[in-house]
Amino acid sequence: MTALNEQLLDKIAECKISSSNKVTIVGIGQVGMACAFSILTQNVSNEIALIDVSADKLQGEMMDLQHGSNFLKSPKITAGTDYALSAGSRLCVVTAGVRQKEGESRLSLVQRNTDILKHIIPKLVEHSPDTILLMVSNPVDIMTYVAWKLSGLPKNRVIGSGTNLDSSRFRFLMSQRFGVASQSCHGWIIGEHGDSSVPVWSGVNIAGVRLRELNPTIGTADDPEKWNELHKQVVDSAYEVIKLKGYTSWAIGLSVSNLASAILKNTNSVVAVSTLVAGEHGISQDVFLSLPCVLGANGVTHVVKQILTEAEVKQLQNSANIMHEVQTGLKF
Amino acid sequence: MTALNEQLLDKIAECKISSSNKVTIVGIGQVGMACAFSILTQNVSNEIALIDVSADKLQGEMMDLQHGSNFLKSPKITAGTDYALSAGSRLCVVTAGVRQKEGESRLSLVQRNTDILKHIIPKLVEHSPDTILLMVSNPVDIMTYVAWKLSGLPKNRVIGSGTNLDSSRFRFLMSQRFGVASQSCHGWIIGEHGDSSVPVWSGVNIAGVRLRELNPTIGTADDPEKWNELHKQVVDSAYEVIKLKGYTSWAIGLSVSNLASAILKNTNSVVAVSTLVAGEHGISQDVFLSLPCVLGANGVTHVVKQILTEAEVKQLQNSANIMHEVQTGLKF
Amino acid sequence: MTALNEQLLDKIAECKISSSNKVTIVGIGQVGMACAFSILTQNVSNEIALIDVSADKLQGEMMDLQHGSNFLKSPKITAGTDYALSAGSRLCVVTAGVRQKEGESRLSLVQRNTDILKHIIPKLVEHSPDTILLMVSNPVDIMTYVAWKLSGLPKNRVIGSGTNLDSSRFRFLMSQRFGVASQSCHGWIIGEHGDSSVPVWSGVNIAGVRLRELNPTIGTADDPEKWNELHKQVVDSAYEVIKLKGYTSWAIGLSVSNLASAILKNTNSVVAVSTLVAGEHGISQDVFLSLPCVLGANGVTHVVKQILTEAEVKQLQNSANIMHEVQTGLKF
Amino acid sequence: MTALNEQLLDKIAECKISSSNKVTIVGIGQVGMACAFSILTQNVSNEIALIDVSADKLQGEMMDLQHGSNFLKSPKITAGTDYALSAGSRLCVVTAGVRQKEGESRLSLVQRNTDILKHIIPKLVEHSPDTILLMVSNPVDIMTYVAWKLSGLPKNRVIGSGTNLDSSRFRFLMSQRFGVASQSCHGWIIGEHGDSSVPVWSGVNIAGVRLRELNPTIGTADDPEKWNELHKQVVDSAYEVIKLKGYTSWAIGLSVSNLASAILKNTNSVVAVSTLVAGEHGISQDVFLSLPCVLGANGVTHVVKQILTEAEVKQLQNSANIMHEVQTGLKF
Repeated sequence: MTALNEQLLDKIAECKISSSNKVTIVGIGQVGMACAFSILTQNVSNEIALIDVSADKLQGEMMDLQHGSNFLKSPKITAGTDYALSAGSRLCVVTAGVRQKEGESRLSLVQRNTDILKHIIPKLVEHSPDTILLMVSNPVDIMTYVAWKLSGLPKNRVIGSGTNLDSSRFRFLMSQRFGVASQSCHGWIIGEHGDSSVPVWSGVNIAGVRLRELNPTIGTADDPEKWNELHKQVVDSAYEVIKLKGYTSWAIGLSVSNLASAILKNTNSVVAVSTLVAGEHGISQDVFLSLPCVLGANGVTHVVKQILTEAEVKQLQNSANIMHEVQTGLKF
Repeated sequence: MTALNEQLLDKIAECKISSSNKVTIVGIGQVGMACAFSILTQNVSNEIALIDVSADKLQGEMMDLQHGSNFLKSPKITAGTDYALSAGSRLCVVTAGVRQKEGESRLSLVQRNTDILKHIIPKLVEHSPDTILLMVSNPVDIMTYVAWKLSGLPKNRVIGSGTNLDSSRFRFLMSQRFGVASQSCHGWIIGEHGDSSVPVWSGVNIAGVRLRELNPTIGTADDPEKWNELHKQVVDSAYEVIKLKGYTSWAIGLSVSNLASAILKNTNSVVAVSTLVAGEHGISQDVFLSLPCVLGANGVTHVVKQILTEAEVKQLQNSANIMHEVQTGLKF
Repeated sequence: MTALNEQLLDKIAECKISSSNKVTIVGIGQVGMACAFSILTQNVSNEIALIDVSADKLQGEMMDLQHGSNFLKSPKITAGTDYALSAGSRLCVVTAGVRQKEGESRLSLVQRNTDILKHIIPKLVEHSPDTILLMVSNPVDIMTYVAWKLSGLPKNRVIGSGTNLDSSRFRFLMSQRFGVASQSCHGWIIGEHGDSSVPVWSGVNIAGVRLRELNPTIGTADDPEKWNELHKQVVDSAYEVIKLKGYTSWAIGLSVSNLASAILKNTNSVVAVSTLVAGEHGISQDVFLSLPCVLGANGVTHVVKQILTEAEVKQLQNSANIMHEVQTGLKF
Repeated sequence: MTALNEQLLDKIAECKISSSNKVTIVGIGQVGMACAFSILTQNVSNEIALIDVSADKLQGEMMDLQHGSNFLKSPKITAGTDYALSAGSRLCVVTAGVRQKEGESRLSLVQRNTDILKHIIPKLVEHSPDTILLMVSNPVDIMTYVAWKLSGLPKNRVIGSGTNLDSSRFRFLMSQRFGVASQSCHGWIIGEHGDSSVPVWSGVNIAGVRLRELNPTIGTADDPEKWNELHKQVVDSAYEVIKLKGYTSWAIGLSVSNLASAILKNTNSVVAVSTLVAGEHGISQDVFLSLPCVLGANGVTHVVKQILTEAEVKQLQNSANIMHEVQTGLKF
C-alpha cells in the first residue's frame, strides 16, 4: 500500500483472498507446468498455487505465468515450498516423483516415490481437508493407492489421471483413420495406465455404430485390417514421445485440465480415471485401476459397469494382482 | 432412479448438489433471460436458478435452456416460484419490476417497484445470507438503494448494474469513430444510469493519449467536431432500441455477465457500477450512483477517486439530490 | 474520419473489411437472434450480418448487439434489408418463414414458405457463391430441399439444422435419468425433425455400454421402464415450450452455433443434420432427412451408415414418401 | 482409407484440407511451443503447422499435441522440416534463432540470426504470399527489420512481438501495487524490446485517472515512492526468469497468442508491436521499434501518435540510431 494507492482508491471493504476454485499443483516439472498452463488458458480456474522443493524454479515459473496475466482472466498465481500456500484448495494435483534409475527394480522406484508422497499428501490434506486429490505421478495407479492410504480421505476423493490420456490417444488415432473429429470417435482404454491397459473394443463406435458389428475380428490377431495396432500405438505413445522430445507434457496437461474442469464445474462427466476397484469385475484387492467413472465436485461418485469379455476381465484381474503384490511390499 | 440405472452405475458416493458458482436470476423477462443466457454461453457459471411469479413461463424458459445442455458445459438449470430454489447462491441478479404507466409519476413507479422488491430481497438474503445482490431493475440507482435497505447487507455487497452498460455503449461509439477495437477505447460514463449520466471527458483515451489533449474543447458545446454527440447518443440509446425492437436485452445481458464474471472469478476489475456514494465527491446522502469501482468476490471493495471538473461534480450532486428526494418519499 | 482521428492515428495501410468467418443470418425473430447471440458469445464468429424485411427491428437488434461489443471480441455486426450486406459469407443461416394459419393445410404453408425462400436463396448465393446454406425455417427438411433446388449448390453445401436439436433434447433427458453429464449420454434421433423422428435405440450408450444390452426391451412398448417416453418427450418438446413461453429460441440457437462451429473451424464432427438422403437406407427420392453426417468446411462430406432395424428403415422411408409427396405439389 | 471406413462412411464430397485460420510456427523451442499451445488452448486457431530443423523433436511435439486433441476443438496439427507444410498460412510466427555465445559481439549474433532467417523468410513468403509475419526471435526489433527486407512484403505485414510483453509485465506489476486486475491497469512500454525500452508515464492510468496527476514525480528519480522501479523490474524480468528457470516461455506464448487473435479475428486492437518507425517521433531511419499500433487482418494499419516528452523522444531516437548502426553492418 503506497500513498498513491490511497490517493487513488477509497477502500470500502476487504478483498476476498481466494475464489472458490483454487487448484494446487505439486511438482513443477514439464508435466506440472503443462497442467497449470492448461488450467489457466482453458479458464478452468484462475487461482493456482505451485509447490515444489526447488525455490528458484518456483519463482521463475510463477513470474513467467504472472507476466502473462494481462492475456488471461486476472489469475492469482502463488508459488513456494511451504504447503501453507495450498490452503483452501478444492483440487490438489500431484505430479511430483522421481524416474526409474538404470537397473532399478520397479518396487524400488515405487518405494522411493512413496517416500516422497509421505512428505506431500499429509500436508495437502492438513491444509485443505475438503480437497480432492488428483494423482499424476507414475506409476499412477499405485501412487494413487499410496496417496489414498496416506491421506485418510474417502476413496471417491482420491483419483489417478489414469487412462483418460490413453483414451484420448486412442480416439485421436481413430480420428485419423476415419477423417472425423476426435470428439466423435468413441472408445475406452481401461485398466492400468501403461503397458497392460485394456482397449474395450465392444464399446468402440461412431454415432453409435459399433465397429465390431462391421468387423467382427476387430481388436483380435485375426483382423486383416489390424485395428489392434491402434492400441499398440497408444501403449507405445509415451515411450515414443519421450524418445523424440525427452518427456511428455502437452497431452497430459490437457488431460488433467479436462478432469479438473469436471471436478470444479461439477459436471458429472464420464471419464476414465484410476479409482479403487475392489468389488468391480471380480477384483477383490484394494488396488486402483482406471474404469469409466462419473466425475464431479465430490470426486468419483459412480463407476460405470461395462460389459467386458472374459479376456478383458482376466487382463484387469492380472493387473490387479501385480499391483497388489507391489503394494504388499511397500513400507509406509 | 430406474433399474437400468442401477445395472449401469455402481454408486460410490453422493453427488454434490451444488457447485460454488450458483447464480440466481429473479425476473425472466427479456432482460433476465439475456442475463442467464450470457452467463451460460460465456462460461461464467454453469449453475443457474430462475425465479419469477409466472410458473408457466419459468417452465418454458428452463426447458428451452436445458434442451441446449449438450452444447454447453453440463449446466444445472432450475426454475420456480419458490425462493428456496435460490439457496446457496453466490450472486443474485434482480431484473424484476414493472414499467411506467402512462401519466404515472416517477415516484409512483418507484413505490410500485419498491413494493415488489419487498417480496424478493428478504427471501433472497434468507436463503443465501452470503450472496452479493446485483440490481438491474430500473430506475436502477434507486432500486439498488431500496435493495440495500431491505437486505440489511453491508454496502459492498449490494450493487447496481448502473453505467457499466452506458460506458460500453460509449466505447462502442468511440470505436466506430476511430475504427479501432472497442476494448482499446477507454472512457467512463458515471453517475445516474440514464438521462443525467456524466461522461468524464478527462479520462477518454486511446493508448493513454487523452483526446482532450488533442482537442481541448472535446465534450463541450464549443467543440466543432461535436464529440458530445457521443454522450447524447448513449443517453438516447435505450429509448431508441426500445422504440425499434420493443425492449433492450443483449447488451444489458452481456453487461451483467461481465459483472458476474468479476464477482465469481474474484478478478478485482475496475467497472462502473452503482454503489453507495455517501462520502464521495462531496455527496453526503445515502444514495447510489455509478463510479468506477474495484469489483471482486466481496463485491465493491474500492471506489476509484476520479479527478472531476467542478461541473462534473455538480452534475453528480444534482443527481444525488434528486434521488435523495425520491427516496425520502418511499414507504418501506 | 474526423480531424481528431487524423491527429491520433497515423495511417499505414487499409483495414481489411472482412475476416474470413462471416456469417449471415436471414430472419431476426427469436430464433434468428438466438442464433446470432450464441455464435457471438461462444466465439464461433465475430462477424455477423443480419438480414430481414423489417428495417426498424434490424436497426434495433443491431444496435443492441453492438452496445455489448465491449464485452465480446470486437465483433463486426451489420444489419439491413439489402442482401449485398451478406457478401462474402462462409455460412448463411436462414430462419425466415411464416407460421401455419388456423385451418391451413401443410402444403399451403410449405408453398408460402417456398415463395419466401425464392426471394432469399438466390440472392444469398449471388453474393456468396462459396457459402454453405444452413436452413432452420420449418418444416426444415422440406425447406432444405427447396433451398437446395433454388440455390443450384451441390448437395453437400445445403444443410438443414434437422435433428441436431432433437438429439440434444434426447441426451438431456437421458442425462437427467442417469445423473450424468449430457455430453456423456450418447443417442441419436434421426429422420424428420418433428413428429415422425426416429430414435435409434441400438446406438444409445454411456461409455460404450448399450442400454439395450441391459434392457433388451428398451424403446419398445413392452419395456416396463418405459424408456420410449424419452422420445415422446423429445417430440413433444417444441410444442410444450411454445405453449409455455410462446416460442423456442435458446436451444435452437445453441444447436445452430454448434453446427456453425463445425463448419467454420472445419472440425469434421459427426452431427445429425438434414441432408439429401437419396441412396441411403433404401430411399430413392430426392428428399432431405437427418442422418449422422461428417460436417466441416465443405459442408456434409460423409453420411454415417447406421445399422438400423427393419422398423426404423420403414419409418425413414415413410417420412421420405410423405415429403416427396409434399414436394411434388410445390410450385417453384 | 480402410475397408471398415468404407463400410461406415458414405462419401458425399471431399473434405476441405484447410480452414482459413492456419498459423505456422517456425522454431519449436520452449518459446515456439508455448506460442503453439497458447494459440490452441485459447481457441485462436485450430490449425497449426510446426517447422524446425530437428525432425525428431518435431515429431515428438506434434504427437504430444495431437494426443490432447480430444480435449481441444479438433485441431489439425502438422510438423516437418519442409516449408511446403506452411502453405496457405494467414500468419507465420518465427521464433527460430541462436543465443549469444560468451564473448560474442551483438553484431555477430545478429549476423548469425540473419543468416538463419535467410533460410526461413523467403520460403514462408513463397508458400504463403498473403501471410503476415510475426517475428519473435531476438533481438526482435532488428530481426523484424531483417525479415521485412528478406520478405519483400509491405511494412504493415511484418511485425515484431516487441513490447507487447513488456507492457503486460508492467501492467502486472502495477496490478500488484494496487490490488486491481491487470486488465484495469493501463500503461505502455514502447521502443526497443529489452534494456532501452521506454515507459510512457503520461499514459499510465486506472479508470482514466493518470497516476502522474496524483504524483507529479512519478517515473523520475525524484519520486519518493520510486515507481520507476516498476520499469526497472520489467527490464530485468527476462534476465531474472532465465536465471531462475532457464528460459522464458509462458508469458511470451500468451503475448503471441494475443497478437495472433487480433490478426486472425481482425479486431483492430491497439497493441504495442514492433513496426517500421521511419516518420514517427522524428525518426528517419528504416528501423523497427514498438509503438502502440492498430492490429487487424491486414497487419498494422495505424500507428498511434502518442504525445511524448522530449526525453522520451530522445530515448526512442537513440534506440533508432543504435539499431540503424547494427543494421548497416549486416550482410544480406
